[in-house]
Amino acid sequence: MSRAELFDAVDVIRTKRDGGRLSDPQVDWVVDAYTRGVVAEEQMAALLMAILLRGMHTDELARWTRAMIASGDRLDLSGVDRPTADKHSTGGVGDKVTLPLAPLVAACGVAVPQLSGRGLGHTGGTLDKLESIPGWRAELSGPEFAAQLRDVGAVVCAASASLVPADRKLYALRDVTGTVESIPLIASSIMSKKIAEGARALVLDVKVGSGAFMKEAGAAGELAEAMVRLGEAHGVRTVALLTGMDTPLGRTAGNALEVAEAVEVLAGGGPPDVLELTLALAREMLAAAGRSDVDPADALAGGRAMDRWRRMIAAQGGDPTAPLPRAAEVHVLPAPATGVLSRLDAYQVGIAAWRLGAGRARKEDAVSAAAGVVLHAKPGDRVTAGAPLLELHADDPSRFDRALAALDGAIQVADIPFDPPPLVLARVP
Amino acid sequence: MSRAELFDAVDVIRTKRDGGRLSDPQVDWVVDAYTRGVVAEEQMAALLMAILLRGMHTDELARWTRAMIASGDRLDLSGVDRPTADKHSTGGVGDKVTLPLAPLVAACGVAVPQLSGRGLGHTGGTLDKLESIPGWRAELSGPEFAAQLRDVGAVVCAASASLVPADRKLYALRDVTGTVESIPLIASSIMSKKIAEGARALVLDVKVGSGAFMKEAGAAGELAEAMVRLGEAHGVRTVALLTGMDTPLGRTAGNALEVAEAVEVLAGGGPPDVLELTLALAREMLAAAGRSDVDPADALAGGRAMDRWRRMIAAQGGDPTAPLPRAAEVHVLPAPATGVLSRLDAYQVGIAAWRLGAGRARKEDAVSAAAGVVLHAKPGDRVTAGAPLLELHADDPSRFDRALAALDGAIQVADIPFDPPPLVLARVP
Repeated sequence: MSRAELFDAVDVIRTKRDGGRLSDPQVDWVVDAYTRGVVAEEQMAALLMAILLRGMHTDELARWTRAMIASGDRLDLSGVDRPTADKHSTGGVGDKVTLPLAPLVAACGVAVPQLSGRGLGHTGGTLDKLESIPGWRAELSGPEFAAQLRDVGAVVCAASASLVPADRKLYALRDVTGTVESIPLIASSIMSKKIAEGARALVLDVKVGSGAFMKEAGAAGELAEAMVRLGEAHGVRTVALLTGMDTPLGRTAGNALEVAEAVEVLAGGGPPDVLELTLALAREMLAAAGRSDVDPADALAGGRAMDRWRRMIAAQGGDPTAPLPRAAEVHVLPAPATGVLSRLDAYQVGIAAWRLGAGRARKEDAVSAAAGVVLHAKPGDRVTAGAPLLELHADDPSRFDRALAALDGAIQVADIPFDPPPLVLARVP
Repeated sequence: MSRAELFDAVDVIRTKRDGGRLSDPQVDWVVDAYTRGVVAEEQMAALLMAILLRGMHTDELARWTRAMIASGDRLDLSGVDRPTADKHSTGGVGDKVTLPLAPLVAACGVAVPQLSGRGLGHTGGTLDKLESIPGWRAELSGPEFAAQLRDVGAVVCAASASLVPADRKLYALRDVTGTVESIPLIASSIMSKKIAEGARALVLDVKVGSGAFMKEAGAAGELAEAMVRLGEAHGVRTVALLTGMDTPLGRTAGNALEVAEAVEVLAGGGPPDVLELTLALAREMLAAAGRSDVDPADALAGGRAMDRWRRMIAAQGGDPTAPLPRAAEVHVLPAPATGVLSRLDAYQVGIAAWRLGAGRARKEDAVSAAAGVVLHAKPGDRVTAGAPLLELHADDPSRFDRALAALDGAIQVADIPFDPPPLVLARVP
């Protein structure tokens, strides 16, 4: 350490350890000093565990998030001639909603600047999905980003390393130290990046259920409230929807499979749940951006959303008309009984898609564009014993065994009617 | 990691984080894998914070301590032809009791194998004190240790690096991560080393008060009970005394100054509190080793303890008759009023001695043999305004200012009688 430090890391750790509240200067210092490498990984690990177990005050969390944002560049979208709005999902199985949503909102006159990530674990990443489109590239320079936002009104691309570098370090550290499951740490990780992105309005899709990070509505609601407060504290109009994730969204989980389903929605079709959620989120984004006068259903029906999609893909080198990759091998899983599908577990389908090649176990792994799962029925639908229920898609048939093992117990067929729960469970505020 | 690991560090951290109890195999694995470097520093830091905040079950702590011991060598004292007993103090200001105690107990027919440490912070280390004796060396080989224990019956020397290597890593990590103040972690750190030393009986001097690590009797009692349970769980007959540390023990705090005071006790004199504690601990050690028939006061009065001291020092190259180093500079602090000394704060005297050069701020610092503080009165004694109360000894007069600043508010003189509290506050069990 070459310059005198304002604080001592052990004092900061002790304050939180003993249930106290970190002062603004302590927060600013510890986040900055950690980013600079002066506060060591083991010291931040101890502090993160103390935060997980002791919690954070609302103002303390707002300051922590502010310090994370200050660790890097904040995008300046003030030159954009339209209102701006973004959306973030906490991640679910088959959640391809960003794909139709961004061009749909852009078609309604609100610009969507979305910096996105790759998938890790059983939920897919938006960039992985888009990369299944031949030619499409995730990395844009700053000027390319600005030009596309101006010309097309929608950009979905990779975040640059200069956006919230503190979060990159913290996220990697939390992953190996059992400190992922902390609502303040999750909220600050998500919101620091979304606030640094510069959009003036933000709609959060907080997933709840077996396939989501948050398994219970109570914790999901707490996370949603923490994030909405953080957004408002930083001048970003923020709304959250809590949506169900006990079963996959739509009828596909995979990369190219989900792109195809997104295109169906843009073409005026697609599974009812994907359409419902896309429109619900679009309405929230438009309202938060001050354009509640516009009905996104019109933009969808009129083909303007599909037009934006094609321009958005083409602007990043993709060919929106090129055929998508298809799996070499397909294994069909029949319905085990005749009746009403009462359970098709999201988490287990997510693990199956992952094992088929759609996801990665380590950051450096490649994903298969074509691998994934196709659902022939959703909970509430009637099924017939022996008729196809699921299709497993893989590049290599050796993948099927472990994917099938993941699905053990995932499916239930009842002999009485089953009404699936509503998709949108709650709204915050 | 070159071999398959039995557990995942994150699972172990999560178990403790969520208030669970680690299984025996989890404990064994995590301590071993940390010692091997497979569990990273940041992972252990998160686990230590979770232990500090969630605590440990009695059996879990015993297993943790066992795993720490298993990380290195355990001394085998089965060839020693006498009972063995050791003593450990949690550290206080002016605590030179090991010096007269080890030869005294040896003179009573019980062998004392004491692996000791150097001081860090405001309390001195036994090795630092002994190193003020010309020629004395702290490092002994295994055969030298065994021979001295056989021939002299008392060894005070440095622990080898192979004794509880897990504790060396854990101690350094706790120091920088705010996880020092955990009773299970303190207890396992002390007891793993003492059990690995191989003595069959152990007496603990748990200090309570301003100059001690434990400021309050409640926490000190909890620590004493945890350590006694750990000793018994590992087959070591263990007893703890809780003793007061609101004022320094004896009339000196420093290295050579304390050696001189220890020699006074061995010669049949010395301050009453040092003598009282030396005899109390000696009786406990003898009783724990099955020799409660021997009275240590006889060995002291008959000169046999002094004889052992001289042989013990000479066996490690020291000259017990050589003059001890004396400070070049002495500053006298007079009593501020006439009356009864009602307060002479141990912590502040410890800090003053440290600043005079008796202690070190970093492990690699050297200490002054001659520096320290001499007390002309103890709480309860009458003092006269202007008469010498404290002497500050230093090699360099520039040290006096900061030492005097440390003493600000440390001294109180009352005009009514003051009865100091008893030295031995409690015994566990």
